[in-house]
Amino acid sequence: MTLIKFIEIIAILVGAFSGFIEARRKRMDMVGVFTVAFITAFGGGTLRDILLDRRPLFWVTHQEYAILIFVLALVATPLIRTVRQIVSERLIVIADAIGLGMFSVVGVAAALDAHMPIFIASMMGVITGIFGGVLRDIVCNEVPMVFRDGKPYAICAFLGNWLFLAMKHYHFPHDLAIWWSAVFISGLRLVTWRFDLRLGR
Amino acid sequence: MTLIKFIEIIAILVGAFSGFIEARRKRMDMVGVFTVAFITAFGGGTLRDILLDRRPLFWVTHQEYAILIFVLALVATPLIRTVRQIVSERLIVIADAIGLGMFSVVGVAAALDAHMPIFIASMMGVITGIFGGVLRDIVCNEVPMVFRDGKPYAICAFLGNWLFLAMKHYHFPHDLAIWWSAVFISGLRLVTWRFDLRLGR
Amino acid sequence: MTLIKFIEIIAILVGAFSGFIEARRKRMDMVGVFTVAFITAFGGGTLRDILLDRRPLFWVTHQEYAILIFVLALVATPLIRTVRQIVSERLIVIADAIGLGMFSVVGVAAALDAHMPIFIASMMGVITGIFGGVLRDIVCNEVPMVFRDGKPYAICAFLGNWLFLAMKHYHFPHDLAIWWSAVFISGLRLVTWRFDLRLGR
Repeated sequence: MTLIKFIEIIAILVGAFSGFIEARRKRMDMVGVFTVAFITAFGGGTLRDILLDRRPLFWVTHQEYAILIFVLALVATPLIRTVRQIVSERLIVIADAIGLGMFSVVGVAAALDAHMPIFIASMMGVITGIFGGVLRDIVCNEVPMVFRDGKPYAICAFLGNWLFLAMKHYHFPHDLAIWWSAVFISGLRLVTWRFDLRLGR
Repeated sequence: MTLIKFIEIIAILVGAFSGFIEARRKRMDMVGVFTVAFITAFGGGTLRDILLDRRPLFWVTHQEYAILIFVLALVATPLIRTVRQIVSERLIVIADAIGLGMFSVVGVAAALDAHMPIFIASMMGVITGIFGGVLRDIVCNEVPMVFRDGKPYAICAFLGNWLFLAMKHYHFPHDLAIWWSAVFISGLRLVTWRFDLRLGR
Repeated sequence: MTLIKFIEIIAILVGAFSGFIEARRKRMDMVGVFTVAFITAFGGGTLRDILLDRRPLFWVTHQEYAILIFVLALVATPLIRTVRQIVSERLIVIADAIGLGMFSVVGVAAALDAHMPIFIASMMGVITGIFGGVLRDIVCNEVPMVFRDGKPYAICAFLGNWLFLAMKHYHFPHDLAIWWSAVFISGLRLVTWRFDLRLGR
């Protein structure tokens, strides 16, 4: 298994996991838990692909991920309280930051492939990174967390996306640009989280 | 009028009707009543077609259904209390179960037509069957009922979709597979409803 | 700058502005303010284009509008209270009515271009005109205003769209039909607002 595949699976699992928790907090049943987990994990990339008119969707080509979340929903629904005790909040934030970095930068690259202008490409990256959580919160009947908690999250993705665009502009190798930008986003997220920095309102 | 056309109209009317009721409960005006009824009736199939990139949409090709719901919204909005007294809950559940069966199996068939892998096809069937109601609840600012009431609904569709996939795999005639699976879903829904079975949480 | 370009910018700014206000009322941070403003300004046209399968999207071709809203979100978020005092409610309603007229009629024209049947085209126009606000309210976790306040808004768009369709049917020049119908919608909205007319519930 390549490193990027491994990180991809981690990022999807973290997305799904945050969906599990939110769905259970809303006292949803197994159908809700699966659906919300699925939407959280794949909603951002799906919305991006619909806006760009790219098909087939990621989770259609890789149905193994959909099956994985399905099995986890079956297994995890009764166990969710136990799982939450094992997995510390710190671990979730770290894994989520890694996912944010990967998803965002891959989203920008996909938008550039589809010949989007650069500001739009940077937005598509942010959409890929954050809209899973936005759709999760809409389905769970909440004002999306990422729009109201004032912590830098979308901003980290946005800045890292521009780092990626700059590196592409100056002809850095593609893989190098992907990795540096993703690490930048994840790192920035973790640093701002650690020191509890807030955006001005 | 063929039998399948007749059932299709019944299924759409039932979807629209549940939209009417929910919209009126939220004290919406005529515009809201029409929109919510429309979304409930066509939302699941529309989302499926967007995900599969199929066009034209069902209700675009058959604008008579859109006009039908429009006229009903005009007529029914002032009469909705009377209508609810005439139409018993039992009748609604039965008609809704028929709609769930038809819509879900037709959704799987559409996904197979679009060369989806089978697990995804089974999901597309469930999306077709339940997302009208999910979108209705989101627009009405509720946590979707189908995710939280713990009654088998999506599960019935899911199981019946696999029956359909199995029958296709073993080369049953297409129409036979459609009818048996749809009847299976409707029947399973009605039996579990009658005996008030619940999913584990 | 042509007149139509000028009106377009006004209409987009008004949409964005109503998003700003709603997002601030929900105490959102800068990310939320930008996103909600963007969704309000472009959500209706984006949904129409997804339903019609038209690409590239309007705001992709014109990234200057996305950048404009981005800059305004940066600048306006701290100033929003001041801005609200300068801009009277009357001014907002007038600008919004102009936007409703333009967006709706342009939406119908786009749907006719895509060979939609006429009832569907009239609906696509209404969707273009009102769904920015609907999506804004869904993201802000409210029952959409346009579905519940009982004031003619979608109805004005709907009637004006049919005026446009009639003028096209009788071979009026395209531009004339656009302008007359847009003015009709804006005027009807302002008259019904001025006299506080309500739809029956």
